[in-house]
Amino acid sequence: MIPVRGFAAHSATTPLVPFRFERRRPGPHDVQIEILYCGVCHSDLHQARNDWSNSLYPMVPGHEIVGRVVAVGAHVTKFRIGDVAGVGCMVDSCRRCEACEADLEQYCPDCLLTYNARDPRNGELTFGGYSEQIVVEERFVVKIPDTMELKAVAPLLCAGITTYSPLRHWKVGPGQKVGVIGLGGLGHMGVKFARAMGARVVMVTTSPEKGKDALRLGADEVLVSTDVAAMAAARGSFHFLLNTIPVGHDVNPYLGLLRLDGVMVLVGVLTPVEPLAGINLIHGRRSLAGSGIGGMAETQEMIDFCAEHGIVSDVEMIRIQDINAAYERLLRNDVRYRFVIDMASLRQPA
Amino acid sequence: MIPVRGFAAHSATTPLVPFRFERRRPGPHDVQIEILYCGVCHSDLHQARNDWSNSLYPMVPGHEIVGRVVAVGAHVTKFRIGDVAGVGCMVDSCRRCEACEADLEQYCPDCLLTYNARDPRNGELTFGGYSEQIVVEERFVVKIPDTMELKAVAPLLCAGITTYSPLRHWKVGPGQKVGVIGLGGLGHMGVKFARAMGARVVMVTTSPEKGKDALRLGADEVLVSTDVAAMAAARGSFHFLLNTIPVGHDVNPYLGLLRLDGVMVLVGVLTPVEPLAGINLIHGRRSLAGSGIGGMAETQEMIDFCAEHGIVSDVEMIRIQDINAAYERLLRNDVRYRFVIDMASLRQPA
Repeated sequence: MIPVRGFAAHSATTPLVPFRFERRRPGPHDVQIEILYCGVCHSDLHQARNDWSNSLYPMVPGHEIVGRVVAVGAHVTKFRIGDVAGVGCMVDSCRRCEACEADLEQYCPDCLLTYNARDPRNGELTFGGYSEQIVVEERFVVKIPDTMELKAVAPLLCAGITTYSPLRHWKVGPGQKVGVIGLGGLGHMGVKFARAMGARVVMVTTSPEKGKDALRLGADEVLVSTDVAAMAAARGSFHFLLNTIPVGHDVNPYLGLLRLDGVMVLVGVLTPVEPLAGINLIHGRRSLAGSGIGGMAETQEMIDFCAEHGIVSDVEMIRIQDINAAYERLLRNDVRYRFVIDMASLRQPA
Repeated sequence: MIPVRGFAAHSATTPLVPFRFERRRPGPHDVQIEILYCGVCHSDLHQARNDWSNSLYPMVPGHEIVGRVVAVGAHVTKFRIGDVAGVGCMVDSCRRCEACEADLEQYCPDCLLTYNARDPRNGELTFGGYSEQIVVEERFVVKIPDTMELKAVAPLLCAGITTYSPLRHWKVGPGQKVGVIGLGGLGHMGVKFARAMGARVVMVTTSPEKGKDALRLGADEVLVSTDVAAMAAARGSFHFLLNTIPVGHDVNPYLGLLRLDGVMVLVGVLTPVEPLAGINLIHGRRSLAGSGIGGMAETQEMIDFCAEHGIVSDVEMIRIQDINAAYERLLRNDVRYRFVIDMASLRQPA
């Protein structure tokens, strides 16, 4: 076994603290990665604090992982020592179901999450990226071009693929008017991707201030959702809406923005949305859909798309020792737009 | 003008009574139809009683109309005197918008409803099929083969097209497991269509009794939605769900029945559905959509499909003089599965 240092939550109500644990030595298909950077996803906070009542402790959060390959198993073909590699929200799946065969491992019923899960092969907890090293089968590791700004790549592994995948699946592109609802870790990536895919991008936000920032990120236009007249004027004009709001809300005003056959996709909402008027779907044959991260093949495609288009996340770097303070700021939505942990801090004195 | 007898509601709280009014003489593109049969849609009752707070009185309901052509305008090309013709929920649209150009007139913002609407060309109310005659532009009239059982064809003009259109749009067919939720005027047509399209059809209902009847109508299987174990066993197994429940309800258990990329379409719900857990859409990239009737080209296609497959509605014939009693039975869901008015009764002494 490999001794690893990290940070862990030991209960819902105590701060993350230094934690020592072990990882398996790389098997024939495994890649061992020294973690350089790990993004801080809002779901890290939810799970550390047991907001979803499914937390397993001790918990080492983190599923936006970028690092350097330090060892590979005998049958590994995609990676060599020294390569830059990424790991996202999942580290295994059944490989045989309809979803796995369609390269949609994220919808496999046996999809194994990077942390806060129990590996059925050995009954051990999985531990995430707030740590020095990780060992993952190569199917669940993506290649990252050395030329990219690595610290700003980390959030692509969750916030990036979560927004890229639905934009691709619903074929967003030139000639379409696309709205991104909510500007946070997910929304800021949605704006960048939709723009790069050639759509006309509208930031839909309650905050005129955030609207301004969205223009800097690449939005063509801002629609302030509390402006009744502006919302009425925009009715029926959107081909697609990427809804990144993280909490339950009234989706009816947004559905009204969609054109004939328009689709709104929920990617962030974690508490129930408010009652929905069926007529808002029936009028214009609209759809309300959901989408979760993306498969491994598509995650690699997304990284390559980012490399080609010069896309990374807007990040604020922190030390691992500041993770608890960062969580408090996350609760206040005080980050533009993603905290990323510089894992070198784990190896330095606090 | 043409003097016409019918039955009308004069307020939300008074019964329908005999009513005399006038229709325009057929213009160059118009078809004049002597009405033989008119189906009784649940929405007739809602509108007669102003349940949606948008009723215009006097109101002559009825939008499931079958009759015989008695006069045609000079430029009419599809119809000759003596032909059997059908009229559904709409009698005009703008002809120029995206929806009209896509043969989806039902989604035209200026779609003119068959009754309870005001014709913008003359400011007059439109009057529906609870009457002797109707005059409609030929674009909004479908041809009905003489060989069909005409009284049982009437409900196809609303209940039929409302269920046929989404099954076609979402490409239901062989190899798919399709659920029809709710067995009433819409649901019983959904079962017949989905079966004829080659899908494996499951009736999803709260009532084992209705389930038995669904088997007679062509369902392969029954899923009783109050049976927790059966619902759990059916999780993730449906490609498509046609949800015909007419009132607000909890859609979450039904969403859980869908497979990867599965779609549930609402066609009947008229009051808000209960709060929806986004995760039920995100897991499996599911969609909740809506669909309203169908365009004129598709309505004709549906009639031709019915003629080819020997499909009609299951009807119970009534006299126009019994319409108020029929409404009371409709409120108790006491009809299998559609009342149809024999309009000959209008010409006879009560």
